[in-house]
Amino acid sequence: MKIKEKLADRVSRVNSMLCVGFDSDVEKMPERFRSMIHPQFEFNKWIIDETHEFVCAYKPNLAFYEAYGARGMVDLDLTMKYLRVNCPDIVTIADGKRADIDSTNMGYVRGIFDELGFDSVTINPYLGGETLKPFLDREDKASIILCRTTNVGAAEFQDLPVDGKPLWRVVAEHVVDEWNKNDNCMMVVGAAETEILRQVREIAGEMDFLVPGVGAQGGDLEEVMKVGVNKAGKGLIINAGRSVIFAQNPGEEAKKLRELILAYK
Amino acid sequence: MKIKEKLADRVSRVNSMLCVGFDSDVEKMPERFRSMIHPQFEFNKWIIDETHEFVCAYKPNLAFYEAYGARGMVDLDLTMKYLRVNCPDIVTIADGKRADIDSTNMGYVRGIFDELGFDSVTINPYLGGETLKPFLDREDKASIILCRTTNVGAAEFQDLPVDGKPLWRVVAEHVVDEWNKNDNCMMVVGAAETEILRQVREIAGEMDFLVPGVGAQGGDLEEVMKVGVNKAGKGLIINAGRSVIFAQNPGEEAKKLRELILAYK
Repeated sequence: MKIKEKLADRVSRVNSMLCVGFDSDVEKMPERFRSMIHPQFEFNKWIIDETHEFVCAYKPNLAFYEAYGARGMVDLDLTMKYLRVNCPDIVTIADGKRADIDSTNMGYVRGIFDELGFDSVTINPYLGGETLKPFLDREDKASIILCRTTNVGAAEFQDLPVDGKPLWRVVAEHVVDEWNKNDNCMMVVGAAETEILRQVREIAGEMDFLVPGVGAQGGDLEEVMKVGVNKAGKGLIINAGRSVIFAQNPGEEAKKLRELILAYK
Repeated sequence: MKIKEKLADRVSRVNSMLCVGFDSDVEKMPERFRSMIHPQFEFNKWIIDETHEFVCAYKPNLAFYEAYGARGMVDLDLTMKYLRVNCPDIVTIADGKRADIDSTNMGYVRGIFDELGFDSVTINPYLGGETLKPFLDREDKASIILCRTTNVGAAEFQDLPVDGKPLWRVVAEHVVDEWNKNDNCMMVVGAAETEILRQVREIAGEMDFLVPGVGAQGGDLEEVMKVGVNKAGKGLIINAGRSVIFAQNPGEEAKKLRELILAYK
């Protein structure tokens, strides 16, 4: 089964486009987890138990695990194993924004897809599509290409005019026209600039988008839903990280967000 | 001491601009290492013992360690500890091509600089300079920004015309004019397109460049040296990865390359 089909099935089953991001910084998690032997795994396990019925996807950001060296990688691996056993139908996204030359990308493919068992990975387009072949060749996985990110300074390069159109548009066109031959591409399009989201939707047809920036980063959910969904009223993976996992009650917060998304749909 | 000074000292001491890249793919290393408990560390240790007197820097590419999950991270950590004890004056480069939003980059900074103890890291500019602040703020470390890479498809985005100049030039100008306030930036400029290398040198003055693509990727070393050095006849970190580490005799190969670089200087 393709990852886009796994995603569609899960979205239907729990009626949710919500993705929860495991930005599991040990210094920010509740005190009781910090002295455990596997703090990041134990914290993620708690978040999974509290939120799983409200989500279509989980997205660990690799930086927060690499921050703790081999210990962090063990906790990430335990998290992935827990998910595989307990929620095998939830889509997993390795948020690593990886990109290197093609022979090196083979290492990331092996580590992220085969060793850790992720369904998908976020990748950076700056080195060009030729380098991304090891990711794109994996028909059983999904590649989520950074198109327009949601950070304050995203415009510095992504909005630069290339022959009259912004760089993010060139990236989107390359993804749609050339890189998606295996029907396994998605794109990252941030929530902060909804006019850009609207235009990327025009270019990308039914393709799934990962949308960060709702919640802690302050994007407007109502507008995102209005301009971002595809013709089927789907096609968005709405990520919330810190606003859910560091909430007093992560389960309540995830439930609330799922319902807000449904209300705006 | 700034990393650029550490580099200059080491370059003078061993009279070498050669960097050896630890692209230590377990499947490509000699049979005798593969069944060891720490194959990547043992292999790197052997390469260090054979080549250290000929190099100014070592550059593990993180992908090859992440490929093996937590085991790979342990081997990378052991490699870094071995270097700190035995060759503390050799510059270490984490080739990770990292980039995320600023709060997430804090995780990479912690993992790469503090947990693993690297002197420097390669970073990708696509998300903009605002996100790179956690890297750039570290005056005791160096940030090596991807400007123009050496792969076949690098031109796809990096050479796109932005108001009449290629994107790589815009990146170089941002690095030189805005990101280098702590005098701790370097750039990646590949060996394949020496005319671009010449132009980036014009923009960047005395700044150090990491130059991949000599050796296995086929760049022209003589031309690289001719157009790439700064006014002091230095400023280049010439990386060779697979062509050295998978040679029959890595020490001989490193020595030969160092001498070739000196001959062209």
